[in-house]
Amino acid sequence: MTDTTIPTPQAPPPDIVRCASMELVVTDLAASRDFYVDVLGLVVTEEDEHAVYLRTLEEFIHHNLVLRQGPTAAVAAFSYRVRTPEDLDRAVGFYTELGCRVERRAHGFVRGVGDSVRVTDPLGFPQEFFHEVEHVERLAWRYDLHTPGALVRLDHFNQVTPDVPRAVRHMEDLGFRVTEDIQDGEGTTYAAWMRRKPTVHDTAMTGGDGPRMHHVAFATHEKHNIIAICDKLGALRLSDRIERGPGRHGVSNAFYLYLRDPDGHRVEIYTQDYWTGDPDNPVVTWDVHDNQRRDWWGNPVVPSWYTEASPVLDLDGVPQPVVARTDTSEMAVTIGADGFSYTRPEDAARAAAHLEDDVLPSWKQGEYKLGHQL
Amino acid sequence: MTDTTIPTPQAPPPDIVRCASMELVVTDLAASRDFYVDVLGLVVTEEDEHAVYLRTLEEFIHHNLVLRQGPTAAVAAFSYRVRTPEDLDRAVGFYTELGCRVERRAHGFVRGVGDSVRVTDPLGFPQEFFHEVEHVERLAWRYDLHTPGALVRLDHFNQVTPDVPRAVRHMEDLGFRVTEDIQDGEGTTYAAWMRRKPTVHDTAMTGGDGPRMHHVAFATHEKHNIIAICDKLGALRLSDRIERGPGRHGVSNAFYLYLRDPDGHRVEIYTQDYWTGDPDNPVVTWDVHDNQRRDWWGNPVVPSWYTEASPVLDLDGVPQPVVARTDTSEMAVTIGADGFSYTRPEDAARAAAHLEDDVLPSWKQGEYKLGHQL
Amino acid sequence: MTDTTIPTPQAPPPDIVRCASMELVVTDLAASRDFYVDVLGLVVTEEDEHAVYLRTLEEFIHHNLVLRQGPTAAVAAFSYRVRTPEDLDRAVGFYTELGCRVERRAHGFVRGVGDSVRVTDPLGFPQEFFHEVEHVERLAWRYDLHTPGALVRLDHFNQVTPDVPRAVRHMEDLGFRVTEDIQDGEGTTYAAWMRRKPTVHDTAMTGGDGPRMHHVAFATHEKHNIIAICDKLGALRLSDRIERGPGRHGVSNAFYLYLRDPDGHRVEIYTQDYWTGDPDNPVVTWDVHDNQRRDWWGNPVVPSWYTEASPVLDLDGVPQPVVARTDTSEMAVTIGADGFSYTRPEDAARAAAHLEDDVLPSWKQGEYKLGHQL
Amino acid sequence: MTDTTIPTPQAPPPDIVRCASMELVVTDLAASRDFYVDVLGLVVTEEDEHAVYLRTLEEFIHHNLVLRQGPTAAVAAFSYRVRTPEDLDRAVGFYTELGCRVERRAHGFVRGVGDSVRVTDPLGFPQEFFHEVEHVERLAWRYDLHTPGALVRLDHFNQVTPDVPRAVRHMEDLGFRVTEDIQDGEGTTYAAWMRRKPTVHDTAMTGGDGPRMHHVAFATHEKHNIIAICDKLGALRLSDRIERGPGRHGVSNAFYLYLRDPDGHRVEIYTQDYWTGDPDNPVVTWDVHDNQRRDWWGNPVVPSWYTEASPVLDLDGVPQPVVARTDTSEMAVTIGADGFSYTRPEDAARAAAHLEDDVLPSWKQGEYKLGHQL
Repeated sequence: MTDTTIPTPQAPPPDIVRCASMELVVTDLAASRDFYVDVLGLVVTEEDEHAVYLRTLEEFIHHNLVLRQGPTAAVAAFSYRVRTPEDLDRAVGFYTELGCRVERRAHGFVRGVGDSVRVTDPLGFPQEFFHEVEHVERLAWRYDLHTPGALVRLDHFNQVTPDVPRAVRHMEDLGFRVTEDIQDGEGTTYAAWMRRKPTVHDTAMTGGDGPRMHHVAFATHEKHNIIAICDKLGALRLSDRIERGPGRHGVSNAFYLYLRDPDGHRVEIYTQDYWTGDPDNPVVTWDVHDNQRRDWWGNPVVPSWYTEASPVLDLDGVPQPVVARTDTSEMAVTIGADGFSYTRPEDAARAAAHLEDDVLPSWKQGEYKLGHQL
Repeated sequence: MTDTTIPTPQAPPPDIVRCASMELVVTDLAASRDFYVDVLGLVVTEEDEHAVYLRTLEEFIHHNLVLRQGPTAAVAAFSYRVRTPEDLDRAVGFYTELGCRVERRAHGFVRGVGDSVRVTDPLGFPQEFFHEVEHVERLAWRYDLHTPGALVRLDHFNQVTPDVPRAVRHMEDLGFRVTEDIQDGEGTTYAAWMRRKPTVHDTAMTGGDGPRMHHVAFATHEKHNIIAICDKLGALRLSDRIERGPGRHGVSNAFYLYLRDPDGHRVEIYTQDYWTGDPDNPVVTWDVHDNQRRDWWGNPVVPSWYTEASPVLDLDGVPQPVVARTDTSEMAVTIGADGFSYTRPEDAARAAAHLEDDVLPSWKQGEYKLGHQL
Repeated sequence: MTDTTIPTPQAPPPDIVRCASMELVVTDLAASRDFYVDVLGLVVTEEDEHAVYLRTLEEFIHHNLVLRQGPTAAVAAFSYRVRTPEDLDRAVGFYTELGCRVERRAHGFVRGVGDSVRVTDPLGFPQEFFHEVEHVERLAWRYDLHTPGALVRLDHFNQVTPDVPRAVRHMEDLGFRVTEDIQDGEGTTYAAWMRRKPTVHDTAMTGGDGPRMHHVAFATHEKHNIIAICDKLGALRLSDRIERGPGRHGVSNAFYLYLRDPDGHRVEIYTQDYWTGDPDNPVVTWDVHDNQRRDWWGNPVVPSWYTEASPVLDLDGVPQPVVARTDTSEMAVTIGADGFSYTRPEDAARAAAHLEDDVLPSWKQGEYKLGHQL
Repeated sequence: MTDTTIPTPQAPPPDIVRCASMELVVTDLAASRDFYVDVLGLVVTEEDEHAVYLRTLEEFIHHNLVLRQGPTAAVAAFSYRVRTPEDLDRAVGFYTELGCRVERRAHGFVRGVGDSVRVTDPLGFPQEFFHEVEHVERLAWRYDLHTPGALVRLDHFNQVTPDVPRAVRHMEDLGFRVTEDIQDGEGTTYAAWMRRKPTVHDTAMTGGDGPRMHHVAFATHEKHNIIAICDKLGALRLSDRIERGPGRHGVSNAFYLYLRDPDGHRVEIYTQDYWTGDPDNPVVTWDVHDNQRRDWWGNPVVPSWYTEASPVLDLDGVPQPVVARTDTSEMAVTIGADGFSYTRPEDAARAAAHLEDDVLPSWKQGEYKLGHQL
């Protein structure tokens, strides 16, 4: 864990309404367009040879995802909508006081939005804030355009950062509230979920080498919509885009699926978390050894899900250097040589004594559990 | 492969309507009752201290599953309903000609059925046939009794046998038709699905050391019912009963889940295969190396699913000796040291040349793929 | 009720596998194609300027529906698949003995089928039988082609006939079995459901002026698929094609929706009835006054559903004359001036005494209940 | 329309987080408990012989519904949670300035909440505000307790008031924002939906004789959950509790069902509206003559739904007098003698010219359309 706490600015933070879009740099725009439009069914608001602007079916702002052709697959912006035009001034003040690089463009960094601020935040992430935006048709009622796997909203981001508590404190300064987290008995935090809108999260901080982007998540209405996406990937002989799931999360209680796009960017499809908008919404803390925390059904997390993530760019488009996590990793403490997990809390003590053969059946031990290969 | 083909009897086979029930020997009747009744929601038709008779919600015959207390977890009978009382005479004639041990009881081997024939068939399985049966209330309309994971029908059995083509020929003699199978380019058959009723199967033959029982399957109406079973197992901290899935099968196109009961008996929950009742229903043959054959989404099959199965009993209640499979195993040719799988048929050649790192991403290679541990 | 019982032929009936397709005469082929293909998503197997051949997504025979341009909207054939080529000889023998007009064409009456027999049956319906058929791709696994309202099978026909018991006896001679019916305490039968395949029906006989075609039904996998069809019709501003539902049937326990095509032909979308294939499958008889018989939720049946139906053609393409029903009609005895319905059996006596204001709340009394207008 | 605009107070309104609970007076507490607990599956937090406190499965505050035994079926409180304790002072100031009767109790009017303010608002409704509340277990993960029709959240209220624009202006003063409304070309507003939380509404104002309570709505996760409630009501022979639906709303785009409890209080079950939390969320205005506004499938609204509603109480428990609506009623202008509706906007002119037989088929004209009885 680093010893450098990020100071809390005196300047008030912008009033963030919600996560609103991500700008993804992709290395083959046509291939990415195929994936997001033809396979996943996102709607093209506009496009040219350099970029495609996509939105979900219930969105009324210009876009939720920008695909931009570039030399290296990376994230150019995590973009949030703020409540008023004046919140952009607040964003400038907040990050300037923190010594961050801040750039503001009256006509936006991408099409469809107006006055915008981009910063490299103290965690190394490219954050964007905007208020002005072009309205487009909300296609909620256009069922003639809906597919079996209809994506209806951008739900959240997920970011990889080495020191989760440090990142959480900074995000709380920015006005986020923690809804759930994963810890262990020794005081290590492995991940935390934070929200502005009253769902489980607008973004999460996942412990790991960072700054990197873990995933961007889109919501469907029902669970069968997510299953339909898998079925379609199978039909297209693209099932190897499915990295993990579908399953039920412990954290968030949502039904989920993780895909990898043609550049390896991870996309989650997500549905049915819960209301968190009360001021005293109870924080749910999960034990890192609880085998149901990441998958409520105890299905193993594939190692790539823990280790792989996308680079993020600075404001010049240069990939940010990655700092290694020094705290123990969730993968190591759960499926590594010394790790353990349990299904029932009463089995935790026996599991901790490394009697894991007794407490998890073979099919729940996961892919790379040492000593359990054929 | 054995060289002993089972002869085709001159005697006509009984006219089998459908798979109708299984008799399971369990070592802790109370624990099994908890699992099948309290967790899975099967309905108790009647019970005493030795046995529990269970049925699904749309069943009108006495039972689809008998749990009987016994010293060793095993299968005592795969039980089929025949069209007429006279079909029992045909069953006696058919198996007697084959030299099988045949036992007939006018009042049945279990409660709720009348005149019944049990045999140890040439493959070593305890098969039962009956026509007379007590009718009970069909609870199809009793939605006040339905749970989120409502099991509505017994769908099929699955049997492990060393020599699949030999078993298939015998089952065809008994009147079954193949609907799908898994083969390789060298002529090895790994599994075959066979039906009497017009679904994908009443039973399947899975290649492996046998005779053993691979699983018994119950049907739900919709996919969310299967998800609800997983969610409930999570809530009860019994998620380690989930062995594999949920997922979409390639074979059968059904949505599935595999559970293990307190004795390790495997239970499938299954929904939405297709009509196979036409006389010329096309047989679907899958390449064993097609990574979507067992899971349409390419999710890896856990090794226990290939290797573990339940003993079956002879007519004296003694576990049948198990004969080893001599053909190559599906696990070995797909995830073993020399195995390979592909997502796209055009990648098969490269995969066969053991370039599997190129053709399957790490997250699809499965748990025990040699050389891919951390 | 007519006094002319149809004799039972000495000749054996053909062995019918299932209802397989309907030939519909439509007055605007382009409009009908829009409805069945663009709105409902049936798949075009082939077409020319006179006819469109359509199939469902899990079908492997050439078609389940033929749309043929013609001068008058009508049904040209209720078409059944038989088990063997020889069953066509049986069909000829069976109907010839009954004195029916019988026509046989070695190359079929429509494309995609071979040797076929068409008859005008004793009830006045154009029945077709065929065995030989062109196989086409079963699109069950082609999820890339599935829509949110995917139609996967032809499920059944429904025919209007004046004398239901007479029709039932004839269909039993043809090898059908009754699964459910609607009667009253005075011995009148209002409708009956009959099956060859082991579902609730391949066809039903509905009491009314006939011979006419009440509806043709296609199956979906899940209930949300049916809802998706309604949602799409709304989006297309075609919601007035929805005549009744969606709802849950009492009879059959299926989830349903009734649409009217551009010519007024009624199409049902249907899912999740139950297994009926046992030889002693219990017949379910519903009281005509049970308000949950046609809609399990007691929602009123719209009068057009009782009164409107499509003409059927003779073998020369001339609409069959319609004979009036002489038994009381279901509409009259339930929502007419002297009709009554009840939700709870124990309320039946009070309802019969015409205290219907007491036993059904206003919102359940239906559209045209006399004396209940504003 | 009344000419008495409610003044906008100088005092700031309380910061309302969400609609949180309703207190219903019921005349037979046992019968109501049966309905809400045994049929609908709400969870009892606590109860005594006078009252039952119920919550939904994802709720963490003490209750969402209070059933209190009383002499007359009525609503005692529409209860909102406010952000801070100080918001109760604001509520007192806001309503005091409006001259309303205001009562504050440090220990709450019901169990489970602390300091609370109740007022009779200028529209005659009993509004309650509270911040302090007892936390109870959020049962989101307790799938062992979920039923097929699991109710997971309180979603909204719906209030009947004679002058909708007047009510809307007042609710805007209280901090609500309009998301959708129904109007006609002459400037009459028939209903409006307003939100604090970012869904389509926390409450709606429906034009009619008022103040009365139109309904209280609970949310499910998926559409099949709502269907399961209907199916269960059928199984319990309580289908006459279903007043309208299930269906898809035009307004809100949600899937819905309306029930009537043992006292006739209307309860909606509701799922899947859309995000409205952006400051410039587009207001959707529906034409009162659009036949898809209330049911996207054009299914007729039953007259009772327009005319019947529950009394509301003043702070002494006396039913509020009802003031008649003077604007035209939605029922009159759509299904009354001079009313008309259309499915397609381009048909509106012909419909307005009273050619309604041409523009709506008989099955869409609704129950009491004059001149369309049998």
